[in-house]
Amino acid sequence: MKYNVNRARNITLVMDFYELTMSYSYFKKGMKDEIVYFDMFYRKNPDNGGVVITAGLQQLIEAVEDMHFSDGDLDYLRSLHIFDEAFLDYLKNFKFTGDIWAVPEGTPVFPYEPLVTVRAPIIEAQLIETFLLVTINHQSLIATKAHRVVQEAKGRPVMEFGARRAQGYDGATYGARAAYIGGASGTATVSAGEMFGIPVLGTMAHSFVQSFDSEYEAFKAYAEIYPDNCILLVDTYDTLKSGIPNAIRVAEEVLIPNGHRLAGIRIDSGDIAYLTKKARAMLDVAGLTDAKISISNSLDEYLIRSVLEQGAKIDSFGVGENMITSKSAPVFGGVYKMAAVEKDGKIIPKIKISENTEKITNPGYKKVYRLIEKETQKALGDIIMFANEKINVNDDLTIYSQFDKWLNKTLPAGEFEYFELQKPVFKDGQCIYPEYTLDEIRENVKKQSALMWDEIFRLEYPHKYYVDLSRKLIDYKLKMLEEKRG
Amino acid sequence: MKYNVNRARNITLVMDFYELTMSYSYFKKGMKDEIVYFDMFYRKNPDNGGVVITAGLQQLIEAVEDMHFSDGDLDYLRSLHIFDEAFLDYLKNFKFTGDIWAVPEGTPVFPYEPLVTVRAPIIEAQLIETFLLVTINHQSLIATKAHRVVQEAKGRPVMEFGARRAQGYDGATYGARAAYIGGASGTATVSAGEMFGIPVLGTMAHSFVQSFDSEYEAFKAYAEIYPDNCILLVDTYDTLKSGIPNAIRVAEEVLIPNGHRLAGIRIDSGDIAYLTKKARAMLDVAGLTDAKISISNSLDEYLIRSVLEQGAKIDSFGVGENMITSKSAPVFGGVYKMAAVEKDGKIIPKIKISENTEKITNPGYKKVYRLIEKETQKALGDIIMFANEKINVNDDLTIYSQFDKWLNKTLPAGEFEYFELQKPVFKDGQCIYPEYTLDEIRENVKKQSALMWDEIFRLEYPHKYYVDLSRKLIDYKLKMLEEKRG
Repeated sequence: MKYNVNRARNITLVMDFYELTMSYSYFKKGMKDEIVYFDMFYRKNPDNGGVVITAGLQQLIEAVEDMHFSDGDLDYLRSLHIFDEAFLDYLKNFKFTGDIWAVPEGTPVFPYEPLVTVRAPIIEAQLIETFLLVTINHQSLIATKAHRVVQEAKGRPVMEFGARRAQGYDGATYGARAAYIGGASGTATVSAGEMFGIPVLGTMAHSFVQSFDSEYEAFKAYAEIYPDNCILLVDTYDTLKSGIPNAIRVAEEVLIPNGHRLAGIRIDSGDIAYLTKKARAMLDVAGLTDAKISISNSLDEYLIRSVLEQGAKIDSFGVGENMITSKSAPVFGGVYKMAAVEKDGKIIPKIKISENTEKITNPGYKKVYRLIEKETQKALGDIIMFANEKINVNDDLTIYSQFDKWLNKTLPAGEFEYFELQKPVFKDGQCIYPEYTLDEIRENVKKQSALMWDEIFRLEYPHKYYVDLSRKLIDYKLKMLEEKRG
Repeated sequence: MKYNVNRARNITLVMDFYELTMSYSYFKKGMKDEIVYFDMFYRKNPDNGGVVITAGLQQLIEAVEDMHFSDGDLDYLRSLHIFDEAFLDYLKNFKFTGDIWAVPEGTPVFPYEPLVTVRAPIIEAQLIETFLLVTINHQSLIATKAHRVVQEAKGRPVMEFGARRAQGYDGATYGARAAYIGGASGTATVSAGEMFGIPVLGTMAHSFVQSFDSEYEAFKAYAEIYPDNCILLVDTYDTLKSGIPNAIRVAEEVLIPNGHRLAGIRIDSGDIAYLTKKARAMLDVAGLTDAKISISNSLDEYLIRSVLEQGAKIDSFGVGENMITSKSAPVFGGVYKMAAVEKDGKIIPKIKISENTEKITNPGYKKVYRLIEKETQKALGDIIMFANEKINVNDDLTIYSQFDKWLNKTLPAGEFEYFELQKPVFKDGQCIYPEYTLDEIRENVKKQSALMWDEIFRLEYPHKYYVDLSRKLIDYKLKMLEEKRG
């Protein structure tokens, strides 16, 4: 039943042009089949937070599987008079043949660790770069923001209401998916309901109230059509003097006599703390103690925390533009950097140097492991190692800060366990990763978050999680830096 | 040749669910064909700017024309067990039959004036709301941001480079379209080149340089393949010690001996002012005075202004995440509010009241006119009037502040002229609006901007442009407010 709009269209050319100019160079220079390793990672948590919740992998898988250059695409590329026919022919028959490992959706992750690793012929690794980045960057951004918002709602449902202010149709639809992964209870965006099975919710706009001769008549009509789920928007004219009294009247005259209850009211403007306290009291006095109060007025995680601290009487939140665009931090800066090349079957690590220390990459084909303290079952940190290194839980394990070898920490033998963070997703171009339901992904968020100390999730000055390197990796990196700079 | 990915898919359900719950109510209550008027407008310029540049109308037209509920959509809606078969049948045969007026793309506009006005059966006016808003909101946001960025580049080309950090695939593609309308010279996003004919540009990433045994070999390979458009990324290892010397060597050894020139270099990190001055000097000393310097490192309008003020030697800019997401102001708050209903052929204005004065709507079916001072050919302001009012240029015209009637201004007879801001777009469901090319829309930006005083476009504390009301409209509005509140 789910309709996958993504697969109904061709997003292959959502691609930076330099992927093509580089690919053409590799093609012309006979280098296109050289095997390379790329890591996708990011450097800074959005909103100065402590963590990111990954999302978007399912769409990345679909984009890789569906990737193709249509005749129209090739005609367009031909019209640029840059590429020769042999190259266009190569694109016509393009199929991804490489390997991809990725961190599952709904996993808490941290700066500098590879979220996605690609091993592929260089031309393929390059041609998938842009949509890989936009897919993971966008959804991880929104999932992370939603996680923050939902956390501050302290158990109250948060509905995603942002389509109209999203950055485009995909921003609305995939954003709703990501928000659901991050913990939102549902969405107003119907396409996201249809495509992903996310619960959809919606009641009325101010225009509905205005379209009747009076607010009471509007509420009455709505109650007659939706007697079992009657949520009334009470702030079109005057919340306390008109909206709530009319809602109560409809409950008493239309709903209760017919065996129904008023499901709730929604307030979309004004002082939330004040209005919800007054509203709660008015509803309670009328015996409508079960009517819920829903709020939807430019909310974000900070405002939700603030109104709850002020004692606002709120049962659920509708969150729009601030969540669907991650307004306070609307960019997730994932990058895709070459980590190694294979020459004659040997893996040769590559490094990207920069004036800015934090922009220097970790070289080599690597794996990331999450280290868990046995006693507390809490994560101690993550370690990035060369893929051919092994962790031995019966030995002490020393982990080294990425930027300063002398900052290190030793985990005593026998006191920790570990698991690998990335899972195999593609092998020789074939997807070998299961398609998880969104509910399974939401479960993963809970399960993986339970491994984290709460301090990681704090909005302000969160605990800094360790993402460290193995001794071999830090030594190799420092040696490379010396050579390149020396 | 242009492939329209938007039309290849169905975005009808990029729709808030409440559009459907309201529509079902109208359907059940026999109200669905009541004629209503809606205005789309916004209340605040992004980035505390003085103006917005409109964009997105072409995609809105396509969305309205293509709107339909597929069998899959209807199956999904049926599965929710909320709507009856008669309503689903209505949706199956849905076609927009109303009228739409809109401000052409590429027009400077201001808070509170209707950018789009819809006259339609209420059910239709409601069902188009969400995609109308997301389309105009998103593209107007990015066009406005691009306009700011391009303005500060002071004639230097600005390329849009943001796909990887966009909020989804549409964010990248339609964002590139909007950025081009706003004045960007081209884009890196191939899909935007293909769909809209926008010039595409791209050269190489750091990975290209890394994939060769040395930076020099990478540059040499690139120069051999693109001798006529050789732009080299010089900051993979060390810009001044390695990148630029290697670029010069390639110019001298590969390009010049074969009758070509070095087109330029690109710097993507480090201190822009310092590095570009050094780079310019090194290139000039080598006789490469015609080699251009391009910069692309987290730029926005403020940083561009700053580095130019510092005397940075820059020929062109590549702008990524800060433009494609309008990072400093990633939400354009367009709203869609009911302005009137028709009863027995009479238009009855409607108003939305709010605790916040600036959220009170302007009632009625209205038109907006731009008032031009004859002598200077500069805009004096805009006036919103009832549609049945006329401006007589041979009479004095008094215009009234939206929020305070006592703030008014009189334009002397004979000293001003005017034009209507909105154009007819749909009449009885038929599109009657021409399809403009992007180049025509870019011309419109220039032509319409020439009517504005420069102070409107200032980044900080811009001149506040008048958007005032006619006497009749302000009087009517105040009367309605008194009645509703009284």
